[in-house]
Amino acid sequence: MRIPILKLHNYLLISIQTEIDDQTAIQFQEDLLEKIHKTDASGVVIDLTSVEIIDSFIAKVLGDVVSMSDLMGARVVLTGIQPAVAMTLIDLGIHLQKVPTALDLEQGLLKLHQELGG
Amino acid sequence: MRIPILKLHNYLLISIQTEIDDQTAIQFQEDLLEKIHKTDASGVVIDLTSVEIIDSFIAKVLGDVVSMSDLMGARVVLTGIQPAVAMTLIDLGIHLQKVPTALDLEQGLLKLHQELGG
Repeated sequence: MRIPILKLHNYLLISIQTEIDDQTAIQFQEDLLEKIHKTDASGVVIDLTSVEIIDSFIAKVLGDVVSMSDLMGARVVLTGIQPAVAMTLIDLGIHLQKVPTALDLEQGLLKLHQELGG
Repeated sequence: MRIPILKLHNYLLISIQTEIDDQTAIQFQEDLLEKIHKTDASGVVIDLTSVEIIDSFIAKVLGDVVSMSDLMGARVVLTGIQPAVAMTLIDLGIHLQKVPTALDLEQGLLKLHQELGG
Protein backbone atom coordinates (compact mmCIF):
# COMPACT_ATOMS: atom_id res chain seq x y z
CA MET A 1 0.00 0.00 0.00
CA ARG A 2 1.12 3.56 -0.69
CA ILE A 3 -0.13 6.62 1.15
CA PRO A 4 -1.61 9.08 -1.36
CA ILE A 5 0.01 12.51 -1.52
CA LEU A 6 -2.27 15.28 -2.76
CA LYS A 7 -0.90 18.40 -4.38
CA LEU A 8 -2.83 21.59 -3.77
CA HIS A 9 -1.29 24.76 -5.13
CA ASN A 10 2.16 24.93 -3.61
CA TYR A 11 1.48 22.46 -0.87
CA LEU A 12 1.34 18.71 -0.42
CA LEU A 13 -1.37 17.20 1.75
CA ILE A 14 -1.19 13.81 3.35
CA SER A 15 -3.73 12.21 5.61
CA ILE A 16 -2.65 9.00 7.30
CA GLN A 17 -5.82 7.12 8.11
CA THR A 18 -4.72 3.57 8.66
CA GLU A 19 -2.26 1.78 10.84
CA ILE A 20 0.87 1.79 8.74
CA ASP A 21 3.52 -0.89 8.72
CA ASP A 22 7.26 -0.33 8.42
CA GLN A 23 7.34 -0.96 4.69
CA THR A 24 4.55 1.56 4.04
CA ALA A 25 6.30 4.15 6.22
CA ILE A 26 9.57 3.81 4.29
CA GLN A 27 7.71 3.93 0.99
CA PHE A 28 5.91 7.07 2.17
CA GLN A 29 9.19 8.71 3.07
CA GLU A 30 10.56 8.03 -0.41
CA ASP A 31 7.35 9.08 -2.16
CA LEU A 32 7.07 12.33 -0.23
CA LEU A 33 10.67 13.41 -0.82
CA GLU A 34 10.38 12.58 -4.50
CA LYS A 35 7.11 14.50 -4.77
CA ILE A 36 8.63 17.53 -3.02
CA HIS A 37 11.44 17.41 -5.55
CA LYS A 38 9.11 16.95 -8.53
CA THR A 39 6.50 19.53 -7.60
CA ASP A 40 8.81 22.03 -5.95
CA ALA A 41 6.36 22.20 -3.04
CA SER A 42 7.07 24.79 -0.38
CA GLY A 43 4.95 23.24 2.33
CA VAL A 44 3.61 19.89 3.52
CA VAL A 45 0.71 19.13 5.85
CA ILE A 46 0.70 15.65 7.39
CA ASP A 47 -2.59 14.96 9.12
CA LEU A 48 -2.44 12.30 11.84
CA THR A 49 -5.99 12.68 13.18
CA SER A 50 -6.85 9.06 12.52
CA VAL A 51 -3.62 7.66 13.93
CA GLU A 52 -4.35 6.47 17.45
CA ILE A 53 -1.00 4.98 18.24
CA ILE A 54 2.44 4.69 16.68
CA ASP A 55 5.39 2.45 17.39
CA SER A 56 8.98 3.57 17.75
CA PHE A 57 9.92 2.77 14.17
CA ILE A 58 7.10 4.81 12.65
CA ALA A 59 7.79 7.64 15.09
CA LYS A 60 11.42 7.71 13.98
CA VAL A 61 10.45 7.69 10.29
CA LEU A 62 8.05 10.55 10.95
CA GLY A 63 10.74 12.59 12.67
CA ASP A 64 13.12 11.84 9.81
CA VAL A 65 10.56 12.81 7.16
CA VAL A 66 10.14 16.20 8.82
CA SER A 67 13.89 16.84 8.94
CA MET A 68 14.43 15.61 5.38
CA SER A 69 11.60 17.70 3.95
CA ASP A 70 13.01 20.68 5.78
CA LEU A 71 16.42 20.08 4.22
CA MET A 72 14.75 20.03 0.82
CA GLY A 73 13.14 23.38 1.50
CA ALA A 74 9.60 22.27 2.29
CA ARG A 75 8.11 23.30 5.63
CA VAL A 76 6.15 20.55 7.38
CA VAL A 77 3.11 21.09 9.59
CA LEU A 78 1.78 18.14 11.58
CA THR A 79 -1.92 18.17 12.40
CA GLY A 80 -4.25 16.19 14.60
CA ILE A 81 -1.63 14.58 16.84
CA GLN A 82 -3.45 12.33 19.32
CA PRO A 83 -2.42 12.04 22.99
CA ALA A 84 -0.86 8.58 22.66
CA VAL A 85 1.07 9.65 19.58
CA ALA A 86 2.37 12.76 21.35
CA MET A 87 3.46 10.61 24.28
CA THR A 88 5.29 8.14 22.04
CA LEU A 89 7.10 10.93 20.21
CA ILE A 90 8.28 12.61 23.41
CA ASP A 91 9.16 9.31 25.11
CA LEU A 92 11.40 8.50 22.18
CA GLY A 93 13.08 11.86 22.32
CA ILE A 94 11.58 12.96 19.02
CA HIS A 95 10.73 16.48 20.08
CA LEU A 96 9.96 18.04 16.73
CA GLN A 97 10.48 21.33 18.49
CA LYS A 98 10.63 23.47 15.44
CA VAL A 99 7.69 21.78 13.76
CA PRO A 100 4.47 23.75 13.75
CA THR A 101 1.40 21.76 14.66
CA ALA A 102 -2.30 22.44 14.24
CA LEU A 103 -5.66 20.93 15.03
CA ASP A 104 -6.76 19.87 11.57
CA LEU A 105 -6.04 20.17 7.87
CA GLU A 106 -7.59 23.63 7.47
CA GLN A 107 -5.67 25.02 10.43
CA GLY A 108 -2.55 23.32 9.15
CA LEU A 109 -2.83 24.98 5.75
CA LEU A 110 -3.45 28.31 7.44
CA LYS A 111 -0.36 27.86 9.60
CA LEU A 112 1.71 26.97 6.57
CA HIS A 113 0.43 30.08 4.87
CA GLN A 114 1.47 32.19 7.86
CA GLU A 115 4.85 30.50 8.28
CA LEU A 116 5.73 30.97 4.65
CA GLY A 117 4.49 34.52 4.69
CA GLY A 118 2.18 33.77 1.78
CA MET B 1 -6.26 -0.97 2.44
CA ARG B 2 -8.52 2.06 2.75
CA ILE B 3 -8.36 5.12 0.56
CA PRO B 4 -7.85 8.22 2.74
CA ILE B 5 -10.54 10.90 2.55
CA LEU B 6 -9.38 14.40 3.41
CA LYS B 7 -11.75 17.04 4.69
CA LEU B 8 -11.00 20.60 3.69
CA HIS B 9 -13.56 23.18 4.72
CA ASN B 10 -16.84 21.99 3.26
CA TYR B 11 -15.30 19.59 0.81
CA LEU B 12 -13.89 16.10 0.79
CA LEU B 13 -10.79 15.37 -1.25
CA ILE B 14 -9.77 11.95 -2.46
CA SER B 15 -6.80 11.07 -4.58
CA ILE B 16 -6.69 7.52 -5.87
CA GLN B 17 -3.06 6.75 -6.52
CA THR B 18 -2.85 3.00 -6.65
CA GLU B 19 -4.52 0.22 -8.54
CA ILE B 20 -7.51 -0.59 -6.40
CA ASP B 21 -9.09 -3.99 -6.02
CA ASP B 22 -12.80 -4.71 -5.69
CA GLN B 23 -12.73 -4.88 -1.92
CA THR B 24 -10.98 -1.52 -1.64
CA ALA B 25 -13.46 0.06 -4.04
CA ILE B 26 -16.46 -1.15 -2.02
CA GLN B 27 -14.81 -0.03 1.20
CA PHE B 28 -14.17 3.38 -0.37
CA GLN B 29 -17.81 3.69 -1.38
CA GLU B 30 -18.92 2.99 2.20
CA ASP B 31 -16.29 5.25 3.74
CA LEU B 32 -17.11 8.16 1.46
CA LEU B 33 -20.85 8.01 2.00
CA GLU B 34 -20.38 7.76 5.74
CA LYS B 35 -17.95 10.69 5.71
CA ILE B 36 -20.38 12.81 3.67
CA HIS B 37 -23.02 12.04 6.25
CA LYS B 38 -20.74 12.73 9.21
CA THR B 39 -19.15 15.92 7.93
CA ASP B 40 -22.14 17.28 6.06
CA ALA B 41 -19.85 17.94 3.11
CA SER B 42 -21.35 19.81 0.18
CA GLY B 43 -18.79 18.78 -2.38
CA VAL B 44 -16.36 15.97 -3.21
CA VAL B 45 -13.34 15.98 -5.51
CA ILE B 46 -12.10 12.57 -6.64
CA ASP B 47 -8.75 12.83 -8.35
CA LEU B 48 -7.93 10.00 -10.75
CA THR B 49 -4.71 11.42 -12.20
CA SER B 50 -2.68 8.40 -11.15
CA VAL B 51 -5.21 5.83 -12.32
CA GLU B 52 -4.04 4.55 -15.69
CA ILE B 53 -6.69 1.94 -16.25
CA ILE B 54 -9.85 0.66 -14.57
CA ASP B 55 -11.85 -2.51 -14.96
CA SER B 56 -15.59 -2.73 -15.38
CA PHE B 57 -16.28 -3.37 -11.70
CA ILE B 58 -14.33 -0.34 -10.49
CA ALA B 59 -15.92 1.78 -13.23
CA LYS B 60 -19.36 0.76 -12.04
CA VAL B 61 -18.51 1.48 -8.40
CA LEU B 62 -17.21 4.90 -9.44
CA GLY B 63 -20.41 5.68 -11.32
CA ASP B 64 -22.44 4.50 -8.32
CA VAL B 65 -20.42 6.59 -5.86
CA VAL B 66 -21.13 9.69 -7.90
CA SER B 67 -24.87 9.01 -8.01
CA MET B 68 -25.04 8.08 -4.34
CA SER B 69 -23.12 11.15 -3.21
CA ASP B 70 -25.41 13.25 -5.35
CA LEU B 71 -28.45 11.72 -3.65
CA MET B 72 -26.95 12.62 -0.31
CA GLY B 73 -26.54 16.21 -1.39
CA ALA B 74 -22.83 16.29 -2.14
CA ARG B 75 -21.71 17.38 -5.58
CA VAL B 76 -18.90 15.30 -7.07
CA VAL B 77 -16.20 16.57 -9.39
CA LEU B 78 -13.89 14.05 -11.06
CA THR B 79 -10.41 15.24 -11.95
CA GLY B 80 -7.51 13.93 -13.98
CA ILE B 81 -9.38 11.28 -15.95
CA GLN B 82 -6.86 9.51 -18.20
CA PRO B 83 -7.66 8.48 -21.79
CA ALA B 84 -7.96 4.74 -21.05
CA VAL B 85 -10.20 5.44 -18.06
CA ALA B 86 -12.45 7.70 -20.14
CA MET B 87 -12.70 4.97 -22.78
CA THR B 88 -13.62 2.31 -20.24
CA LEU B 89 -16.30 4.51 -18.70
CA ILE B 90 -17.92 5.31 -22.03
CA ASP B 91 -17.59 1.72 -23.34
CA LEU B 92 -19.49 0.55 -20.29
CA GLY B 93 -22.21 3.10 -20.75
CA ILE B 94 -21.23 5.02 -17.64
CA HIS B 95 -21.61 8.46 -19.12
CA LEU B 96 -21.45 10.57 -15.98
CA GLN B 97 -23.02 13.26 -18.10
CA LYS B 98 -23.94 15.57 -15.32
CA VAL B 99 -20.65 15.17 -13.53
CA PRO B 100 -18.29 18.12 -13.80
CA THR B 101 -14.71 17.21 -14.55
CA ALA B 102 -11.49 19.15 -14.30
CA LEU B 103 -7.80 18.78 -14.97
CA ASP B 104 -6.46 18.56 -11.44
CA LEU B 105 -7.29 19.02 -7.78
CA GLU B 106 -7.02 22.82 -7.82
CA GLN B 107 -9.25 23.12 -10.88
CA GLY B 108 -11.63 20.62 -9.33
CA LEU B 109 -11.99 22.66 -6.16
CA LEU B 110 -12.50 25.79 -8.23
CA LYS B 111 -15.20 24.07 -10.25
CA LEU B 112 -16.93 22.89 -7.10
CA HIS B 113 -16.82 26.42 -5.79
CA GLN B 114 -18.44 27.69 -8.97
CA GLU B 115 -21.04 24.90 -9.13
CA LEU B 116 -22.09 25.47 -5.56
CA GLY B 117 -22.11 29.21 -6.04
CA GLY B 118 -19.70 29.66 -3.16
